[in-house]
Amino acid sequence: MSKPKIETCFSPSLLHLYDISNSIVVIIDVFRATSTIAAVMHHGAKAIIPVSAVDECIRLGSEIENSLTAGERDGKVAPGLQHGNSPLEYPREFIEGKTLVLTTTNGTRLLHMCSEANEIITGSFLNLGAVCDYLLAQKKDVLLACASWKDRYNLEDSLFAGAVYDAIGQEFEMNCDSTRAATHLYRQAKHDLYGFIQDSSHFLRLSKFGLQYDMEYCCKINQHNVLVKLEGDQLLAIND
Amino acid sequence: MSKPKIETCFSPSLLHLYDISNSIVVIIDVFRATSTIAAVMHHGAKAIIPVSAVDECIRLGSEIENSLTAGERDGKVAPGLQHGNSPLEYPREFIEGKTLVLTTTNGTRLLHMCSEANEIITGSFLNLGAVCDYLLAQKKDVLLACASWKDRYNLEDSLFAGAVYDAIGQEFEMNCDSTRAATHLYRQAKHDLYGFIQDSSHFLRLSKFGLQYDMEYCCKINQHNVLVKLEGDQLLAIND
Repeated sequence: MSKPKIETCFSPSLLHLYDISNSIVVIIDVFRATSTIAAVMHHGAKAIIPVSAVDECIRLGSEIENSLTAGERDGKVAPGLQHGNSPLEYPREFIEGKTLVLTTTNGTRLLHMCSEANEIITGSFLNLGAVCDYLLAQKKDVLLACASWKDRYNLEDSLFAGAVYDAIGQEFEMNCDSTRAATHLYRQAKHDLYGFIQDSSHFLRLSKFGLQYDMEYCCKINQHNVLVKLEGDQLLAIND
Repeated sequence: MSKPKIETCFSPSLLHLYDISNSIVVIIDVFRATSTIAAVMHHGAKAIIPVSAVDECIRLGSEIENSLTAGERDGKVAPGLQHGNSPLEYPREFIEGKTLVLTTTNGTRLLHMCSEANEIITGSFLNLGAVCDYLLAQKKDVLLACASWKDRYNLEDSLFAGAVYDAIGQEFEMNCDSTRAATHLYRQAKHDLYGFIQDSSHFLRLSKFGLQYDMEYCCKINQHNVLVKLEGDQLLAIND
């Protein structure tokens, strides 16, 4: 039996180059949407509803029982929302059993662009292991889809794509230079991921808001090892 | 005085993210358009006219005195054209004084997409030094524009972007993750560029046509150290 295929897309602006109708798409927004999603679901939230716009976030938050709204624009809680986009903001005692309505600049937008995918899951270093285990078990084609920053390639998302390929690539067919480049970079960076990432656009941008500790946390592997999958319009934790 | 800015664009599909109106754009199509362009101009061609379509190439070839037509589709000379897209095909005794009308899959298309640029030059490992010297002397903003393969990121073009930044980056302001990634990759690859590039989509594709020797040649640095610039609709060699 032939192996399933794995590819990496560096930017939402390149998504049209990939046929995702039979693929699992892994949405990657390491700083910080998909890291926060992993933490929130690992701490027992009922669901996350990803939305594109702040006003939709506010509206859904007022309609859904036991829900919170969250989202940032330029590193600060967006006006009208209750919480931010930090994985450290959502301890179990706070988020368990609740529904989080979340809007972010890049990650939620890409997620909605991938509606034709066979399946959509979210990936971050915080749940790398769960993502890899799931992809291995499903034996489907995979697209590692980097949210990037306003469509520009970014280092941290491609490093995560490289981490996935580094871990499970041998079980896939691969002929994709984006995946090759991401894997070269990850193997160069893996022994000090946080150190490596400090020379990156997003790190420099978020550092101005004092978010270094957040980003250091987002570079930790398997802290919140939960598999998160889009079911309808909700992100849910999937148990094995 | 502030330094000029340098950025890298990994694909024509990302070109809209960059303002090139005040920039020198370096068109990069290592396998093989811009490598061939360097060899042809270094060997004394009068000019190269890059065109997008085969029929336009044939028409111009019949109109222009002392001209040749060249271009490939899928690694073979395109029907109706006279020559291929190999830097080894154009020794001085053959090409000197002639005009080459050239069409390629990716490089010539990107070149036409950059018409709003302040200046357009072409870059390849074969003329890396001339490109770097020119960019240093001009002191303008720079976009290193990878032709890629049908809009997909490729390794060899980004390696060249990394080579430029590795050589002259300290004279530019840079906050561009594409440039950072390209430079990390180049520094990993530079001691055996041809070895590194053998695990890439384009190498594997062109190898099927027996073009390994061509690609090995395209990985050589400063074999044809000429600066090639677009003036009107012609690529010309620029002497210092």
